[in-house]
Amino acid sequence: MNPESEMYPNDNIVIYDTTLRDGTQAEGISFTAADKVLLARKMDDFGVDYIEGGWPGSNPRDMEFFRLIRNEHLKHAKVAAFGSTRRAGTDVENDIQLATLLEADTPVVTIFGKSWLLHVEDVLGTTSDENLDMIRESVEFLKKHGKEVVYDAEHFFDGFRDNSEYALKTLEAASQGGASFIVLCDTNGGSQVSEIKHIVGEVVKTFKNIPVGVHCHNDCGLGVAVSIAGVEAGARMVQGTLNGYGERVGNANLTSIIPNLSLKLRYPLSCDRYLKGLKDLSNYVDELAHRLPSRRSPFVGKSAFAHKGGVHANAAKKVSHSYEHMRPELVGNEQRILLSDMAGGSSVEMKARKMGIEVDRKSPQMKSFLKHMKELENEGHEFENADASFFVLLHEHFFDHEDIFELVSYRIISEVVRDTGRNISEAVVKLKLSGEKEVKISVAESTGPVGALDHAARLAFGAHFPILKEVQLEDYKVRILQTGQGTDSITQVLVKSTDGKESWWTCGADPNIIEASWEALRDSFRYKLIKDGD
Amino acid sequence: MNPESEMYPNDNIVIYDTTLRDGTQAEGISFTAADKVLLARKMDDFGVDYIEGGWPGSNPRDMEFFRLIRNEHLKHAKVAAFGSTRRAGTDVENDIQLATLLEADTPVVTIFGKSWLLHVEDVLGTTSDENLDMIRESVEFLKKHGKEVVYDAEHFFDGFRDNSEYALKTLEAASQGGASFIVLCDTNGGSQVSEIKHIVGEVVKTFKNIPVGVHCHNDCGLGVAVSIAGVEAGARMVQGTLNGYGERVGNANLTSIIPNLSLKLRYPLSCDRYLKGLKDLSNYVDELAHRLPSRRSPFVGKSAFAHKGGVHANAAKKVSHSYEHMRPELVGNEQRILLSDMAGGSSVEMKARKMGIEVDRKSPQMKSFLKHMKELENEGHEFENADASFFVLLHEHFFDHEDIFELVSYRIISEVVRDTGRNISEAVVKLKLSGEKEVKISVAESTGPVGALDHAARLAFGAHFPILKEVQLEDYKVRILQTGQGTDSITQVLVKSTDGKESWWTCGADPNIIEASWEALRDSFRYKLIKDGD
Repeated sequence: MNPESEMYPNDNIVIYDTTLRDGTQAEGISFTAADKVLLARKMDDFGVDYIEGGWPGSNPRDMEFFRLIRNEHLKHAKVAAFGSTRRAGTDVENDIQLATLLEADTPVVTIFGKSWLLHVEDVLGTTSDENLDMIRESVEFLKKHGKEVVYDAEHFFDGFRDNSEYALKTLEAASQGGASFIVLCDTNGGSQVSEIKHIVGEVVKTFKNIPVGVHCHNDCGLGVAVSIAGVEAGARMVQGTLNGYGERVGNANLTSIIPNLSLKLRYPLSCDRYLKGLKDLSNYVDELAHRLPSRRSPFVGKSAFAHKGGVHANAAKKVSHSYEHMRPELVGNEQRILLSDMAGGSSVEMKARKMGIEVDRKSPQMKSFLKHMKELENEGHEFENADASFFVLLHEHFFDHEDIFELVSYRIISEVVRDTGRNISEAVVKLKLSGEKEVKISVAESTGPVGALDHAARLAFGAHFPILKEVQLEDYKVRILQTGQGTDSITQVLVKSTDGKESWWTCGADPNIIEASWEALRDSFRYKLIKDGD
Repeated sequence: MNPESEMYPNDNIVIYDTTLRDGTQAEGISFTAADKVLLARKMDDFGVDYIEGGWPGSNPRDMEFFRLIRNEHLKHAKVAAFGSTRRAGTDVENDIQLATLLEADTPVVTIFGKSWLLHVEDVLGTTSDENLDMIRESVEFLKKHGKEVVYDAEHFFDGFRDNSEYALKTLEAASQGGASFIVLCDTNGGSQVSEIKHIVGEVVKTFKNIPVGVHCHNDCGLGVAVSIAGVEAGARMVQGTLNGYGERVGNANLTSIIPNLSLKLRYPLSCDRYLKGLKDLSNYVDELAHRLPSRRSPFVGKSAFAHKGGVHANAAKKVSHSYEHMRPELVGNEQRILLSDMAGGSSVEMKARKMGIEVDRKSPQMKSFLKHMKELENEGHEFENADASFFVLLHEHFFDHEDIFELVSYRIISEVVRDTGRNISEAVVKLKLSGEKEVKISVAESTGPVGALDHAARLAFGAHFPILKEVQLEDYKVRILQTGQGTDSITQVLVKSTDGKESWWTCGADPNIIEASWEALRDSFRYKLIKDGD
């Protein structure tokens, strides 16, 4: 084993993240250089061992990242620059690609080379021998310049199936050059679990003195499984991306691989003691990528430990965790009881109790409450994701809450005039506040109709409810229900608000997007007033 | 082997779909009885062997489905009703649950029973012996009434780990009762590939005369892999759902399992010859469930064979399929070349050619085109999913397309008055049409602001562009970019239009949702005029 890999305990599995490089090959994913630095810091805190930052030379953003990251103090992670071996027929000393890799000034350089003769001949247009020289000399050159070199054997499994002898020779070349790890890549993502297990086992048997890694993709829906199979066959490094970002359907998903290796299979990892931060890390990368976190993500998704009414929810209540494969808290997640569809009084009772409200599932109000809630859901409201709207509905229904304010009317004018560049929305709102006789009327402008409505409503509340000034909008989501009916379909709006102390979601639904937005805003104001008034 | 399972060739793997039952346990998924019939027909056409339709008695919708499906002629698939064994301490003849299962009047009944002593004692509150009787007697009773019985052993793998002897006894009871299949369920989804492979192998060895099935979930991100491992260990039936719908993170995804078993591992399946319909089937179920198809679905997702610029796109062009693990056409999918981020002239050239437009990647216009496109993307436009907007942009840029119409201004008034119930949007639009001197002004009303704008614009086009009357809106999507800035963020709108012959997507982006919608509508009208005018 090379000295570089001895910093890890002998049997630790090394996590090599390539979210910042291979992850950005995904459709719709891109990070600024500053975003990349934020994410690298977060991954370092989580205990990731290697962070592949980009491909210097492929675009200016990646080089900018390497410039910025030099000034960061990372506690544990090593930063890697990614690139290819030298070109065919050039000398390593004169190869621009290799020079750019040195310029990135990272402790680690990862280079990929060809293992599959089809690619050597048809894509590179060179000979099998020259390809071996390209690999060995490039690794040697980078080593000579003080780099730790990780060698990624592109298309290794396809190459091995085609000509195993040649595929192994390419690894031998990287090993001779002085690579720290030889990483077997299933670049096209087509391999099955049993194949990967077999082939990794063969390589591990052949190369006893150099640790082996795997780099897999999810094209067959097996990205997590093949990575684990690689480890079970003796691989020591797993390459992948957070949330499985990556080209086509994505890379092997580290967010699933890590808890499987650590919690289920008990392999030691550097990030073992930070697992409680896994959900947070997963959400953080989604946020930087402007992606909505997937509810259905294993371990970290919002639905991962959610139970609908009926048998499972009842049993989950009866025997704690008898319907859960692990404690959600271990990865920073939590159990949720869902309300909709088969929701019964006991689900509402449990959910209300979580909010600190006691309601009796056998009370007569519960029956009418369930009926009313289901009617609203049929109209497009969604309480599963709008806890604060559920809270307001509970209060209205069970505690005869006096209406704190009442909408009389609003009118919004959105105007665009091309030659003057005018693009403005104006809202006029009339509200009746409880305990006040007169109707408050107010007007406000904003760039969009919903912003104008929000501002005008706050003005109308004015001195009467000063605490509403603390409420800010944090997020706003729109979904069209009953697709297929064009612009006259039902619009569902979810609004996230904060008062600096906590955040909450409310919902609205109407054929008119503005009315749907108003409903969500109204619930948000009511939530704040009930919460701070009681 | 029981006679029922002999209708399949000896080594066929049997596909058992539970989208209509377990799939509807997913957060946000529900189907009407009529939707379920549509989906059952579609699955039958695709060659699915068993279709589990619901749990009669759990809700009226499921019983309604069984009533409707009786009148359908299915070519191949057998419909199954799902339920549990009899209650502890009751007689099968007097068990309401079993009576309801017979009432569903299906050829197949699937019942689940307990394999895990923890559940027998703590959830059911009965003895280990009574549980065995419940299983055996319930299967027997249903057999006696002419049913084929599939036995689902709930929590089998947890039970086996806890007490393998007892777990096997529960299977023995089902076998004695006359079950056609004994199905091992990883109900909580916590098992690893190697465990499932080992335990299924043990069961197959023990029960030589009855075929074994597996029913898995995706909680560890391994749902596809563990199902395949089960088959490799000798299981003959795979239970799962289309697109992996299901409780928590979902059931084992048949949409991935089927092509793996058939195309990669060459197991014979009844649906082998219908695989070209896989993507269509996957999209169909999403449509019925009002879900957006996931781009990242293995095999069938829009991104599954998509290549970004750079090395891969160039090589994919050079050596066909050298960067693809299979031919996308085999599952009804296609290769796509993506434009954004690292898009270069050659990607634009390829994409334009697919649309029947020849542009030269080395032309001077290409450089300014790429610059302009990237600026628009920075402002929030998204051409990857809005081919028609890309088409319009190409025409404007490369062919100096004369502006067919020009917006002068619009004004939208949305008004809500509570006590009269008024909720109406009115749009006034001024357009200048090419070849006409005067400005056209028109007004229209609708339930929402975007509908009003759409109607008013069509009126303004009037007699001048009668072909625009053919254009209808099919879908409308809204996404808020740069979340965290509340209602003043950039709003991205995607609009799907159709003229009855084809459908197309266009995009718009602006802080004002109405302006963003206008941009998308405008591109849609332009696309139709260019397409039919040239």
